[in-house]
Amino acid sequence: MAKDSSGKEEKKMGITAKKEADFSEWYVQILINSGFIDYSDVSGAIVFKPDSYFVWEGIQRAVDPLFKKEGIQNVYFPLFIPEKLLNKEKEHIEGFSAEVAWVTEAGSSKLDEKLAVRPTSETIMYASYSKWIRSWRDLPLRLNQWNNVVRWEFKHPVPFLRTREFLWNEGHTAFATKEEADAERDPILGIYEHVLKDYMALPYVKGKKTPSETFPGALGTYSLEHLLPSGRALQGPDWHSDGQNFSKAFDISFLSKEGKKEYVYQNTFAISTREIGVMVATHSDNKGLVIPPRLARIQAVIIPIYNNENKVEVLKYAAQIHDSIKDDFRVMLDDDDSYSPGWKFNQYEMTGVPVRVEVGKRDLDAQKAVLVRRDNGVKEAVDVASIKGKINEALESMHRNLYDKAKAFMDANTIAVQTYDELKKRADKGGFMQTPWCGSEACEAKIKEETGLKGTNMPFEAQDKAKGKKCVYCGNEAKSIVNFAKSY
Amino acid sequence: MAKDSSGKEEKKMGITAKKEADFSEWYVQILINSGFIDYSDVSGAIVFKPDSYFVWEGIQRAVDPLFKKEGIQNVYFPLFIPEKLLNKEKEHIEGFSAEVAWVTEAGSSKLDEKLAVRPTSETIMYASYSKWIRSWRDLPLRLNQWNNVVRWEFKHPVPFLRTREFLWNEGHTAFATKEEADAERDPILGIYEHVLKDYMALPYVKGKKTPSETFPGALGTYSLEHLLPSGRALQGPDWHSDGQNFSKAFDISFLSKEGKKEYVYQNTFAISTREIGVMVATHSDNKGLVIPPRLARIQAVIIPIYNNENKVEVLKYAAQIHDSIKDDFRVMLDDDDSYSPGWKFNQYEMTGVPVRVEVGKRDLDAQKAVLVRRDNGVKEAVDVASIKGKINEALESMHRNLYDKAKAFMDANTIAVQTYDELKKRADKGGFMQTPWCGSEACEAKIKEETGLKGTNMPFEAQDKAKGKKCVYCGNEAKSIVNFAKSY
Repeated sequence: MAKDSSGKEEKKMGITAKKEADFSEWYVQILINSGFIDYSDVSGAIVFKPDSYFVWEGIQRAVDPLFKKEGIQNVYFPLFIPEKLLNKEKEHIEGFSAEVAWVTEAGSSKLDEKLAVRPTSETIMYASYSKWIRSWRDLPLRLNQWNNVVRWEFKHPVPFLRTREFLWNEGHTAFATKEEADAERDPILGIYEHVLKDYMALPYVKGKKTPSETFPGALGTYSLEHLLPSGRALQGPDWHSDGQNFSKAFDISFLSKEGKKEYVYQNTFAISTREIGVMVATHSDNKGLVIPPRLARIQAVIIPIYNNENKVEVLKYAAQIHDSIKDDFRVMLDDDDSYSPGWKFNQYEMTGVPVRVEVGKRDLDAQKAVLVRRDNGVKEAVDVASIKGKINEALESMHRNLYDKAKAFMDANTIAVQTYDELKKRADKGGFMQTPWCGSEACEAKIKEETGLKGTNMPFEAQDKAKGKKCVYCGNEAKSIVNFAKSY
Repeated sequence: MAKDSSGKEEKKMGITAKKEADFSEWYVQILINSGFIDYSDVSGAIVFKPDSYFVWEGIQRAVDPLFKKEGIQNVYFPLFIPEKLLNKEKEHIEGFSAEVAWVTEAGSSKLDEKLAVRPTSETIMYASYSKWIRSWRDLPLRLNQWNNVVRWEFKHPVPFLRTREFLWNEGHTAFATKEEADAERDPILGIYEHVLKDYMALPYVKGKKTPSETFPGALGTYSLEHLLPSGRALQGPDWHSDGQNFSKAFDISFLSKEGKKEYVYQNTFAISTREIGVMVATHSDNKGLVIPPRLARIQAVIIPIYNNENKVEVLKYAAQIHDSIKDDFRVMLDDDDSYSPGWKFNQYEMTGVPVRVEVGKRDLDAQKAVLVRRDNGVKEAVDVASIKGKINEALESMHRNLYDKAKAFMDANTIAVQTYDELKKRADKGGFMQTPWCGSEACEAKIKEETGLKGTNMPFEAQDKAKGKKCVYCGNEAKSIVNFAKSY
């Protein structure tokens, strides 16, 4: 392994599991054996190594300026939340209480009151909002935090997808009217859609969650849902309309222009490091990681191929190419003498570098280089004079290809289902089952109980198909189309 | 207060305490009453509101790219550290054990092993370093985290300067040889010097700490020390040479090129949100905050001054000026009708906006605007055609002025002291006392006990003055010059 300071082990095991045969084992192998993450001494918490943390920084770099443009400011609230405060909104705490980690001691003293390690920050933020918001002039208040949260799940942990600590943004906004609050939904979801599509190369289904899957205490949750290669669904970024639920519990009220006391309308929204797991699982293959070019810490690696006779001139040529593009891409020259080119090819395929640049004596003589794309293995000999444009093309084309492939997979596994028999029959096959539903929580609960399928969301784009349909369970008039799926 | 989403209260108290008369009370008033921070329901932890969090983001934006250029990669390690791991290096844990917050419960279960909320991450990171580093090829390993840490101090908390949770960077690097490890010191301290001087407008004293003030377990600590307006010293960013102390405790060893097992040499370094307190305390005045222009969330505020007759044309003129510079500066137009210009002047002086732009009917007629600098109150009428250059000049000049004033204060309060009598006499007057010292910990301890003065560091630039001097306490030959001071 070349000397870069990413902390990779010298010798790594390769990827032995197959994505199509044993998804779970394959997923862990591509993450651990490639040096993308590592396990830690804390069960259920992972170490983000440089390549994975770089992805998270890339997501922040994409999202944060758009939040600011939207008028949202960043703040930072304390990690700890006093027990009394956490318990202030009943429905909310019920959603989290089983997963809260508690600080009870400091130094050698027992604390007077237990402190929760934040599972989310509504309660501590809204205690401040109550103080800060007095009049209509103080609105809207649109704040966001980038931080770490802890949810001590007892289910089997899965890197990124189910970890006890994760990183996220939590946006918390307050408005004078429901109309203004609702108008925030599309711009915020639009920012998340942008980062999913244009950075992570991920497709998604946008829609409203069913009431039983709505955030505890919220009026409505809107989500972008993913379909993993295993056929299971996983919820991506979301936006919650919290109405006046919290503002009444925390007395976040204001004097209106007319001098009346009113409660604010609130929203919350988040994208988390969970998304990195979706990205990696979606694009990677049996050789290892595939990282979309805009989020790859190293976008291109130059590998010189030489023998004793031509070593000096080939290395010089490789270094010239490196210098000519190093301001345009995140590029690395691997001139480590002690590994063979073949070993390096495998290594960088495993770590997911988007483009490999091979340069040997023949390339030097012809003033060429060979570009190899990580996503499809396509090789192209290019003139060194045009290498910058060619690498750029390869990266752009790879991004589109990753998105298109993932979208095609999702589309192929999205099936309209009209009868309960069919739903039951397909339940274990994976994918989204677009199913007419009457809107009754009882029907949804029965479906879940009998098939293991959960309502992921009600896709915006499929709602017109509900017209004239019957609920797949009770046969009453359908009110909406729900994407049922087995979920993570 | 104009409508910006920074969460400011409608009515704030002004600043009643005087910096020179009651520094502590003044310090809290400028932070709280200006809306820069707020207290929270967790004692000793503060809320970073938009203006203060923006400063921290600015520090990160300045430091992080320079770390990356230096070859340091960002990572993220878990927040929790199992008790056994934390106890692995004896000296280290002794330095922190009194301040560790412990998680002992999750949900309704008691945990099998207590988990420390990280006070710093050596122990959890080095458990991984031990796995990751196998051969000389894996070195250097240079990683950094931007994260939150908790140190549950029982002393009276002071916003930024002494808080139970703070934000920082923690750099942790490992090298094959002591020479390579030592060579990291100047570049890293140089990065911190850059952000202090060129962003925060803060002077500092660079030097080595005395052994008794060295980081627990380290061979040497090098620091940038500040002098607060109160005359008390406060330690800024630091860099620690940890030698092989941790590598031996955690078995971070490697096979050298010659095939021998060797232990790595390690360094650590940090800058924290404490620095924001130093910045604010240093520059601010009895009207409120003064924020150095490069870290101010709002760099210029435009305030239109009009009456009913000329309102429309003045507002239009103000908007034109705003639009003409909004891509060049972080600028805000405050056209809120319900507050008087005078009220606004006070308000933005309190919140520390570097430049105020006043525009009235007379300015419109003359195609002028009046710039008022926050640091010195100087007013200048400028042609609207050249306003961009003039604001830029004002911001640059303000930055230099803040630095120069702070540097002059520090220099004026840095006194060479040759006798113990003089040291005792000056002890309560504040400032750095440059004192010859023999190098004995006993002398330093006695000085501290008898005068309350602590050795801050041994300034690099003052060491040539030790030659031929006697230790101020024991009279033996002086080995170095120590800056003694009362410290925070």
